[in-house]
Amino acid sequence: MDRVDVVVVGAGYAGLSAARALRTAGRAVVVLEASDRAGGRALSARTDGGWAVDLGAQWISGGHTRLAALAQDYGAETYPSPSAGANLLVEGAVRRPFRGTRPPLSPLVLLVLGQAMWRIERLAARIDLAHPWTTPGADRLDAMTAATWLRRNLPERRARQLAEVMIGEELCVDVGSVSMLALLTTIRAAGGVEAGVTAETVTRLFVEGADGPALSIAAELGDALRFLSAVTSIRQGAQGVSVRGEFGEVAAAHVIVAVPPVLAGRIAYDPPLPAARDHLTQRMPMGSVLKAFAVYDRPFWRDEFLTGQALNLHDPVPVTFDATRPGGPGCLGALVPGRAAHRLAALPAPERRGMIVGSLVRAFGHRARDPIGWHEKVWADDPFVRGGYGAFFPPGVLTTVGSGVRHPVGAIHWAGSETATEWSGYIEGAIRSGERAAAEISAH
Amino acid sequence: MDRVDVVVVGAGYAGLSAARALRTAGRAVVVLEASDRAGGRALSARTDGGWAVDLGAQWISGGHTRLAALAQDYGAETYPSPSAGANLLVEGAVRRPFRGTRPPLSPLVLLVLGQAMWRIERLAARIDLAHPWTTPGADRLDAMTAATWLRRNLPERRARQLAEVMIGEELCVDVGSVSMLALLTTIRAAGGVEAGVTAETVTRLFVEGADGPALSIAAELGDALRFLSAVTSIRQGAQGVSVRGEFGEVAAAHVIVAVPPVLAGRIAYDPPLPAARDHLTQRMPMGSVLKAFAVYDRPFWRDEFLTGQALNLHDPVPVTFDATRPGGPGCLGALVPGRAAHRLAALPAPERRGMIVGSLVRAFGHRARDPIGWHEKVWADDPFVRGGYGAFFPPGVLTTVGSGVRHPVGAIHWAGSETATEWSGYIEGAIRSGERAAAEISAH
Repeated sequence: MDRVDVVVVGAGYAGLSAARALRTAGRAVVVLEASDRAGGRALSARTDGGWAVDLGAQWISGGHTRLAALAQDYGAETYPSPSAGANLLVEGAVRRPFRGTRPPLSPLVLLVLGQAMWRIERLAARIDLAHPWTTPGADRLDAMTAATWLRRNLPERRARQLAEVMIGEELCVDVGSVSMLALLTTIRAAGGVEAGVTAETVTRLFVEGADGPALSIAAELGDALRFLSAVTSIRQGAQGVSVRGEFGEVAAAHVIVAVPPVLAGRIAYDPPLPAARDHLTQRMPMGSVLKAFAVYDRPFWRDEFLTGQALNLHDPVPVTFDATRPGGPGCLGALVPGRAAHRLAALPAPERRGMIVGSLVRAFGHRARDPIGWHEKVWADDPFVRGGYGAFFPPGVLTTVGSGVRHPVGAIHWAGSETATEWSGYIEGAIRSGERAAAEISAH
Repeated sequence: MDRVDVVVVGAGYAGLSAARALRTAGRAVVVLEASDRAGGRALSARTDGGWAVDLGAQWISGGHTRLAALAQDYGAETYPSPSAGANLLVEGAVRRPFRGTRPPLSPLVLLVLGQAMWRIERLAARIDLAHPWTTPGADRLDAMTAATWLRRNLPERRARQLAEVMIGEELCVDVGSVSMLALLTTIRAAGGVEAGVTAETVTRLFVEGADGPALSIAAELGDALRFLSAVTSIRQGAQGVSVRGEFGEVAAAHVIVAVPPVLAGRIAYDPPLPAARDHLTQRMPMGSVLKAFAVYDRPFWRDEFLTGQALNLHDPVPVTFDATRPGGPGCLGALVPGRAAHRLAALPAPERRGMIVGSLVRAFGHRARDPIGWHEKVWADDPFVRGGYGAFFPPGVLTTVGSGVRHPVGAIHWAGSETATEWSGYIEGAIRSGERAAAEISAH
């Protein structure tokens, strides 16, 4: 049986950042990862020519200071998300180009949309990020879905559809499933509506894929990172913790569980977790997302001065974007969140590909019909992740058991993007959560 | 390694009924139970004099034909729930007696309450119990909480509070957490609003406790029922299934998993469960309930011609009832559902008892102040149950992944009250689900 200072469960950005911080502080660490790779919800594939394609988390924006620091430390290059040209708003057979962040809708639609966004901004500004459940009006906002709030505050159908597409892209969950309080908290954690929309226009992508810095930390960890080591039980006693699985047993003074809450709930704890923490793991499921990338010999949409970004109000694919690497082949990304992801995932692969390519053709014309390469990932199918981007709060959860999300249970500390107060749901939140968990232990 | 025809996971009413049906059909069965007792969410304690107190499921009503059949087969006696006298409506310091099911509220309040109940009845009548997600209007009803529907359709505050208390008692979940479509499905599965309210007046209790028939089946099973045998993994292959845990391994042609969905999700499956079924286990958490019983030398409230039943619109204890056994000491039951259960459970035991007794005193006077016996159970604390009465559907779940609730995955069959189309959430539903799962296998 090994004995170390700290065991970290999960080798995503949260667990890796925690391990890195603890080693810097002189602690002996073992990282146990159930799968055969590091990076968690960041995962890069390669096109035929070897260019990166981000099947999971991908963007880095101005507020992502910790991710930027890692990128610098490990020499991971970034480039501006392609954004020259016009975006598209697609509704059935009608496609309309527009520039910037204001879609080409009637002044009335833009007015009600603007009003609703202003209301959301104002509500989000009241959220106490460290304790959203204590925000004034929290109970009422948590007792309704975001769909209910939108119906009430965005009576115009097309404006509402657009808002639903934008929220779906942000959370990977249908507006009819998520609590309004949780939506506001997520928006606030990303700096607000306006900041979020502005940030979108200045995001960057990693040339070699967003899992680059994670793989660099993993390499640094060497033998301290153990793959194919699924943790099945955690026991706490007077001597510390014992972390077990088919791989054997590792003993330590502390353990950091750096996996999403639902997966943390699938570990057997002895003594059992307190009821409130157990219910949090029961009630905080993962969103669902399918990402697909169509590779073309060149980014042909740029010939028509299009960015590659399209918002689609009716199609199975609500959002597309340009993921072409500098000098690489043309690459269009398609993002399918929520229940649409479940529906598409249930189809045979050729049929699913046909439907997604159909969406691309409606937006970008017949030249999109025959991609030379195809990459896709259904995150809910991944047995070591089981959804994406992150976990979400259904109605009633934040105000009932939400306070347990970061609260240590004895020698067990919780990390993962879901536990971050800022940028939760992003790589940035994962890194900050890992460093926070490491700091909790270093304070002992 | 043992080999049988069918392994059943869980020795609650669902698993036991499945095992019983399979043995009757000539199949060799092993039942694996994680705890040291049979009965699941039915659990009886004894007062000092040996009288039964039901800490979990307790009532049997007219429509519970399968439970009645078991009661008859095993000679489990029942008696009518004490109901002679007046009920109480308590609001702060004001208590008002009333007879029957119509609380003493102003004609206006009763009118709006009646209208809302009529609307619910009409909506519930449209539910397709076998496929609630296909009901006309399902998407919209599933995208809102029951709280939202009540706010819109019950603008009168006190009428709404009363409805919230009644729904809380039915589902053990706050109206702000549960989908309106799910609430309608539960109501329909119990025969409708009117039938439910009528049934309440003719329910019966088990003299020796509601777990009696379960214990009788368990005794019949003998060595085929193995306690302290927590299942940690289920593997499916060409040869059938292999069910494992620290107890060892049992091989079989089929397995019936007869535990709530969230606990089913904590078993490791090889191959992994399909994404939609996995997401169902992520998104179908348990309700939460605390039950407490105060024992008195005699049922003193009957001196004042009170039934012992009280509805409390402001107290931590929204519902009390008479659980006195014929010839036994006075016994008042208190039922605390949802977030109130979490709050009370977090208090030190004497403080919790003090708050509950305070509620009883406000309803039944100073003679309630000093119970001679006290029994309580926080179901979310039970590591083998983790909530109660049953699992519930937050918004958006039924219409997204709900169809997986009963659908077998290869040789894995699902039972448990949550999988029943009728009387789901009741012992009756558990029995029917177990018999249905057994029939699925017998049909092979």
